[in-house]
Order: sequence, then C-alpha cells, then structure tokens
Amino acid sequence: MNVETTRLVEETDTGAVRRIVLCDVKRRNALSRAMIDTLSDALTRAVADPAIRVVVLAGDGPAFSAGHDLREITAMRDAPDGGHAAFEDLMGACSALMTTVATLQKPVIAEVRGIATAAGCQLVASCDLALAGDQARFCTPGVDIGLFCSTPSVALTRTVAPKHAMEMLLTGRPIDAPRAAEIGLVNRVVADDALTDATMALAALIASKSGAAIATGKALVHAQSGLPLGEAYALAGAVMARNLLEPDALEGIGAFLEKRRPVWRR
Amino acid sequence: MNVETTRLVEETDTGAVRRIVLCDVKRRNALSRAMIDTLSDALTRAVADPAIRVVVLAGDGPAFSAGHDLREITAMRDAPDGGHAAFEDLMGACSALMTTVATLQKPVIAEVRGIATAAGCQLVASCDLALAGDQARFCTPGVDIGLFCSTPSVALTRTVAPKHAMEMLLTGRPIDAPRAAEIGLVNRVVADDALTDATMALAALIASKSGAAIATGKALVHAQSGLPLGEAYALAGAVMARNLLEPDALEGIGAFLEKRRPVWRR
Amino acid sequence: MNVETTRLVEETDTGAVRRIVLCDVKRRNALSRAMIDTLSDALTRAVADPAIRVVVLAGDGPAFSAGHDLREITAMRDAPDGGHAAFEDLMGACSALMTTVATLQKPVIAEVRGIATAAGCQLVASCDLALAGDQARFCTPGVDIGLFCSTPSVALTRTVAPKHAMEMLLTGRPIDAPRAAEIGLVNRVVADDALTDATMALAALIASKSGAAIATGKALVHAQSGLPLGEAYALAGAVMARNLLEPDALEGIGAFLEKRRPVWRR
Repeated sequence: MNVETTRLVEETDTGAVRRIVLCDVKRRNALSRAMIDTLSDALTRAVADPAIRVVVLAGDGPAFSAGHDLREITAMRDAPDGGHAAFEDLMGACSALMTTVATLQKPVIAEVRGIATAAGCQLVASCDLALAGDQARFCTPGVDIGLFCSTPSVALTRTVAPKHAMEMLLTGRPIDAPRAAEIGLVNRVVADDALTDATMALAALIASKSGAAIATGKALVHAQSGLPLGEAYALAGAVMARNLLEPDALEGIGAFLEKRRPVWRR
Repeated sequence: MNVETTRLVEETDTGAVRRIVLCDVKRRNALSRAMIDTLSDALTRAVADPAIRVVVLAGDGPAFSAGHDLREITAMRDAPDGGHAAFEDLMGACSALMTTVATLQKPVIAEVRGIATAAGCQLVASCDLALAGDQARFCTPGVDIGLFCSTPSVALTRTVAPKHAMEMLLTGRPIDAPRAAEIGLVNRVVADDALTDATMALAALIASKSGAAIATGKALVHAQSGLPLGEAYALAGAVMARNLLEPDALEGIGAFLEKRRPVWRR
Repeated sequence: MNVETTRLVEETDTGAVRRIVLCDVKRRNALSRAMIDTLSDALTRAVADPAIRVVVLAGDGPAFSAGHDLREITAMRDAPDGGHAAFEDLMGACSALMTTVATLQKPVIAEVRGIATAAGCQLVASCDLALAGDQARFCTPGVDIGLFCSTPSVALTRTVAPKHAMEMLLTGRPIDAPRAAEIGLVNRVVADDALTDATMALAALIASKSGAAIATGKALVHAQSGLPLGEAYALAGAVMARNLLEPDALEGIGAFLEKRRPVWRR
C-alpha cells in the first residue's frame, strides 16, 4: 500500500469488525480510479483476514460518496480514443468492486451519513445491509449530466421495486432517508449522531454468529438468486446438508439443546 | 396414514376450504421428517379432492412452526456417514413440500399465530397469501446455531426485498407482525382473536371464484415467473386465449354482461 | 388514421411531452381491439417524433381503463373456432402494446384517475412511472368472470411483491390509491384535482434531461433486467462507456464542472 492509498480510506478493527472509512473528503469520497483500487484492495484484505467477520463501509465528511470523479473522467478524454478505453477500464473496475461487495463471503454494511450519489448510491445498494443517518440522501442524477446511471441501475433495480428505481433514475431527484427505508434501499434510519454506534452494534451482532455459517449463507443467497425455484432448492438443500456436518452446526445445535452459549470454531 | 400422522395435523373442511392445522404442540409444530410427510400427504389429498378449492395452513399452540426438529437432526448424526444422507433426504423432502405449497393448483393461505421460525418462516413465505396475528413473529435464526437458513432464504428472497431478507438471515432477529406486513412477508395483520375468522373469510372469498380460473392462474403465475418479458407474455397470452374458451369464462362473462351471479362449472 | 381512431384517444403536446388521453368514455376506456391498435399507433408516432421526449397516458371519464371489452370478446365467439384465433390475436396485440410501453425508448407515465381494471391495471404496471389520483383504484378481477388475469399478472408480478400481486389476482378486490403507492404499483398519490398538473410537471422535469441519456438508460434498464449480476454489469458498463463519448455527456459534465446549465444536443 502506498501513501496515496493510506489517505483515501482509513481502516479500524473493533473486535471482528473492520470499519473502512472513505476519507477523500475534498472530493466528497468520489469513486475515483484510485479510490476504487483502494477500496477493492481493502475488501480483499478484509476477506483474507481470518480475524475479520464483518465489514462496515462509511464515509468521512458531508458525503457518503459522490460517485464517479467527473474531473478525472474529463481528463481521460485527452487520450487518442477520446477516453473510450479508460472509460471501459473505469466501468469495469467499478463494476468489479460492486460485485465484490455483493459476493465477498463476509457481510458488508453501509453506514450512510450525508449524500450517496450515482455510484455512491450503487455502493449502498450493493451492500448486504445499510443504515442511514436521518440527514442522509440518495440519488442517481446521471440524467442531469447527460450520463444515465446505467451501472448504478444494475444494483438499484435489484434492490428496490421497479417504479421506485425508475423514479430515481429518470428524475435524478434525491430521496431522503425515511423514503430510502420505505422502499428498501436501506434497512432503517438512525439519528445522525447515533448512526455509528447503531451500525457498529449491528456489525458486532452479526460478528457474534458462526463465521462459517455466515460465509456459507451469503454465498448461497447470491448463488441461488435468479435460479428457477427447483434449481435454487437443489442448490440450497445440498449446501444446508453439508453445513449440518460442519463443526459450528454441531456446536450450535448442541448448545441450543443444552441451553448454553455456543463457542464457534470459525 | 398411520396414527402418528393423525396426531400431527388436523384437517377440517368448511365449504370448499380445507383447513390444515399443525398440532404437534409439544414440539412447537416442528417440521420433523414425519410432519413434512404428513403435510405433503395432506396437500396432495387437498389437491386431489374436487370439493376443495382453497387450503388454509394454521398452527395450534404458541408457535405457527419452529422449523426443523433439532433433536431429530441430532439423532441422525449417529449414522455411519454422520447423517449426511439423512440430512440430504430431510432437505429434499422439505424443499419438495415448500415447492408443492408454491405450485399446487389451489391457493394456500398461511394463518400465522405465534412465532414462525426458520423452515416455519419459509412455509409462510411459500404460501400464496398470509395473514398474521398481531402477536405473530417471524425469524430465520439459523446463524444462532451455526446453520445458516439456506433453504428458507430461497423462499424469503423471492418474497421480500433483498436488504430485508438479508437482515433477517444475517442477524437471526425476529420481526413482529406489522413489520412483516410492511416488507410483504404477510398480506396484513389481524388481532389474534379475529385471525381465524379473517383467514377463513379470505379463503371463502377466493373459494367463491371459478376454480378453473384460479387453478389456471396460479399455475401461470408460477410458470411465467423469472421468464424474460417476451416469453412470459407469449405463455400468458396462450393461457388466457384457452381460458376464454372454457365454460367458466363463458358463464362468467355472460353473467357479468347480464348483471347476474355466475354459476361455476368447476 | 381513421375517424374511429381520432375518437378513441386525444393527443396533445406540451413542450416535449405528448399527452395521450384515452377517451372512449362510454366503454370506460376499454382496451378493445381498436383501442389497442390506436394506442400502439400513438406510441409508435410518439417514439418517432424527435420533438417528443416523454409520454403521459391518461384516461377521460370515471375510469382510467376498464380492461378488455367483454362485449367484443363475446362477439368473437361467433367464429367457427369459438373465437380462439381472435382471442390469440387480441392477447398478442395487447401483450405487444404492454411490451411497447415498457420498452420504447422514451419514458411513459401513467396518470391514473378513477379505476384501472385488469388490462387497465396492467397498463399502469407497465408504465415506467405512475401517479394516482386520491380516488383511483386498481384491481385484477378476472377471477370474478372465470378468466384469471393471466397477462396482467406478467406486469403485476414484475412490479409489486409476490404476496401483494397474488392478493389482487386471487381475490379480485380493488385496492385504493394509498395502498397502490405502498406496494409500489404507483409512485405516489396526488389529490384528483391536482393530478394532471403533478403528472405534467413530472413529465416536464424528465423532458428537461438529455433525451439521449434517457433513451440509452431506459433501454439498458430493460435489457439488463433478469440477467445474472456479472452479465448485467458487463452490459451496463459497455453502455456507460459509450454514453460517456456522446455529445450530451460531454456537454452535461462540462456544464456541471463549470456550474452552468447544460444545453442538450438531443
């Protein structure tokens, strides 16, 4: 990791929870090419670290994330191809980051303070869970700059009902935190000054469960998504039968029947 | 069916509504291997009986259903393979039951009093409709016993929005009846002491419709689910054109135009 | 277009918004074969007209649309095949209309005053956005006439949660406007006498965005729907990289960085 990287995010561990805070405040935590690499790297390390069970993503300053860095995009236009290769690389890297968030085998919780715009809103939609501060807002305003939020729409349309997604995508208007909770973009709203405590408590709760069960489960939920019902059940049934043979299920079921606290192997 | 079976569920017919009540109160209506067989058999008979148009599933005692029977699962571990074959059989039978509920050509309504846990919650999600008593609660707490609710997640993620499903699956925490209605896990909440009447009235309303139309329709809704829009419409259009040729559509449309009550053939 | 057509809908342009009003009041704006052709034709012309950016669909009289014309359907039975060919043609034409609404590259907004029944409700579900007057109601009452709302279920189950769709489809009971907003069938409820103004303002807002971005985006949202996450992102990323090279994105991003209003090419 270089110095640049160190400046873009801050990582702190509290028990088994890794808190990754975007801290490029000057650029409102834009998902610049460097930020995408830094976040991707931070997530890769969080997955690889056996001491970590849950990841929290938060943003320093008045924005959770302002989406792509429009100055950086503009600079890319100077290339002989008008930026096409750089744009494809940028969109590919950003989509890979979002896919990593959605599929890495540890839960990722968004802690949203301030505004989450475009790819920043996509990041919230891509997380497993999200808590919003009461002043948080969410928007996909690409239509205001001639650039429809196409990649954000992939995450948004998989998270909220079609008409709610289309309203955000076609109007570009922000929605507030209570509305975001209403449509399922976030799980709930917490007063801004209680938000970090609430998010960390939620993360600690999930971190107290069997890490093996959580990893197995998140992978299964993703894998069965979109499959026909029969195929989804065939997959889930096989996963569950194997899960039952794992030490944590033996311990967990034993502890339940003996009315004691389980001690997880993993 | 044997005596054991007779004890696990009670079946009562009211008009064209078959009410199946899980009554293994001692085990909180756990979906034991025997209960799964009993319920599957009861549903098969309900489908085959031409006098029955709608099925209601309810639970006796303080729980709608507590999910799998953990003592039974633990006993399965004594087999030479540690229980793997029995677990696969159990998950297969349970998934087949849930698929039957979702696909059998008569509507199935859950009447949820008390707690619906894990596979019990999956059963609610799998029903076409569900009414909850005001004291009902719902949870998928597999993570508390080292066993992620993988098969329940198949039904849950097809019923509620992704972040709501993940919150239940990752935290294991119960949600109350109003929250279940808010996220679409149940249709609505009714005071506990009015719940049976409300559910039976809803069932009777649906039973008063053409059984042919209902059977055709439930099958179509399932078959078109997940298809691309063009294929879904091709299928639904063909089904509807055939449905128009059936005696009940002739009678129903005729009765409507003549402002009289229809008399269904089926 | 013939005189009959002129009578079935009225079209008015306000800026870049084409307002298409169903005005077959006597038949409660039924989606008769002629109305389907007229609407399809009106939409085709709206797409082809470069001056038009957004389409509003409204209904004159007490009903938004009463769905299929049951007298017309009954008359079709006189054919030697009992109407089968005519029914298939009718369902095919109606499904094609709904698919056009969902996929044409300009946003379509439903302005719902009064009742939207069966295929009328399907039309609301098929629009990108919908505003409901406070007295609006929605239902899919095919089961009351022996004809399950199969084709409407294609749109309805893609718009609202499964249990909400099944409740409407199985009971045939109408839901009111606030409930429609709650379940995501419409975006919001507006007092009946403010409904047209609110819908036209929403349409004008969307019309003020880059038409190129909106067209690209609506097509992408539809194309990526139902694809596995990886494929959806591959498609959306390619679309967005190309969108960045278009004049409107250059202008829009430039205007944003220079804090001025953009002037769209398209």
